[in-house]
Amino acid sequence: MQYQIELPSWVVKDCEKLPTCLPQLEDRMETIIRFARSNFEYETGGPFAAGVFDKTTGRVVSIGVNRVVPCLNSSAHAEIVAISLAQQKLQTFDLGADPSIEYQLVVNGRPCAMCFGAIPWSGIRSVVYAASGEQIEQITGFDEGPIHPQWQSELQKRGIEVVDGVLAEQACDVFRQFAASGQPVYNSRAGGPPSSS
Amino acid sequence: MQYQIELPSWVVKDCEKLPTCLPQLEDRMETIIRFARSNFEYETGGPFAAGVFDKTTGRVVSIGVNRVVPCLNSSAHAEIVAISLAQQKLQTFDLGADPSIEYQLVVNGRPCAMCFGAIPWSGIRSVVYAASGEQIEQITGFDEGPIHPQWQSELQKRGIEVVDGVLAEQACDVFRQFAASGQPVYNSRAGGPPSSS
Repeated sequence: MQYQIELPSWVVKDCEKLPTCLPQLEDRMETIIRFARSNFEYETGGPFAAGVFDKTTGRVVSIGVNRVVPCLNSSAHAEIVAISLAQQKLQTFDLGADPSIEYQLVVNGRPCAMCFGAIPWSGIRSVVYAASGEQIEQITGFDEGPIHPQWQSELQKRGIEVVDGVLAEQACDVFRQFAASGQPVYNSRAGGPPSSS
Repeated sequence: MQYQIELPSWVVKDCEKLPTCLPQLEDRMETIIRFARSNFEYETGGPFAAGVFDKTTGRVVSIGVNRVVPCLNSSAHAEIVAISLAQQKLQTFDLGADPSIEYQLVVNGRPCAMCFGAIPWSGIRSVVYAASGEQIEQITGFDEGPIHPQWQSELQKRGIEVVDGVLAEQACDVFRQFAASGQPVYNSRAGGPPSSS
């Protein structure tokens, strides 16, 4: 009556080697893209990674990678994993509770419909991503799900900054390598009733 | 470098007393509403519960309750907990993988934006809920988040049935009791930059 999501051991080791702070936004994204690439190369999940940072100082709070297939959990997307680990580390379900710190979520691709919906609940104040939803879908074949058509302004209305296209070309390279690797693209169901009905 | 979501012990005990199958849809919903009420009465989470059932036979696969505050995890909504436990029990990240069984998610209120986005990924084939999003927001003050304006048809397009309004009045009664209890309504941030910036 419990479930657990854990990071692969290589992520734990690589996190120990990270500097305490990554003051430059590009360095944060480069780090996340590196985790995303290694995650599918090590076959420990899909080609997605995310990190929670103190927006001002760049302090690394948590790193998450996609764990859907290894943990048998369709909600174990990189963003949910990174946010959950940050909340556990900081012992709060609301990363926006302390108004003196803005936490930033950095992801190698636009959040899917679920992760988009998770962001307002999390207390995250800034979302930075690399590849667009279209790029992810076209290159990899992943279905990113029915995200709100005005998702950027819906976040902005709630005081959450959105920054897109940071190192998008580097992120797309990882998706191309993933597509060429022949690893499984697990997807939301394409639709249609099951054959028995 | 891991996080864990667990059910409170009273849920584990109450699950042991459930019949193996609940053939009638109203009985499934009544059960879920009972778990939702007990969850805030025992102060083990918000007034939300969800269950995964075999749609045809009513076999109970998993029960989830909201665990946001006790587990310090903003994504531990009842639907995510129920789906995660079902996937763990059935050892698959895709509840739609076996085309001969349709799994049904039964919830006491309309899924929020995040849980809506989680449904297509999960392999769930049928979603049944009681109270509407408007009813939840008006009675409790919870912000249900920026759900896709055509969320029902977006699910239906993906072959996922949506049934609403089942025992809605009973579900609203629980929300009214919750609202009267004075327990905290944790919300996505209302917006505006933190005071330091």
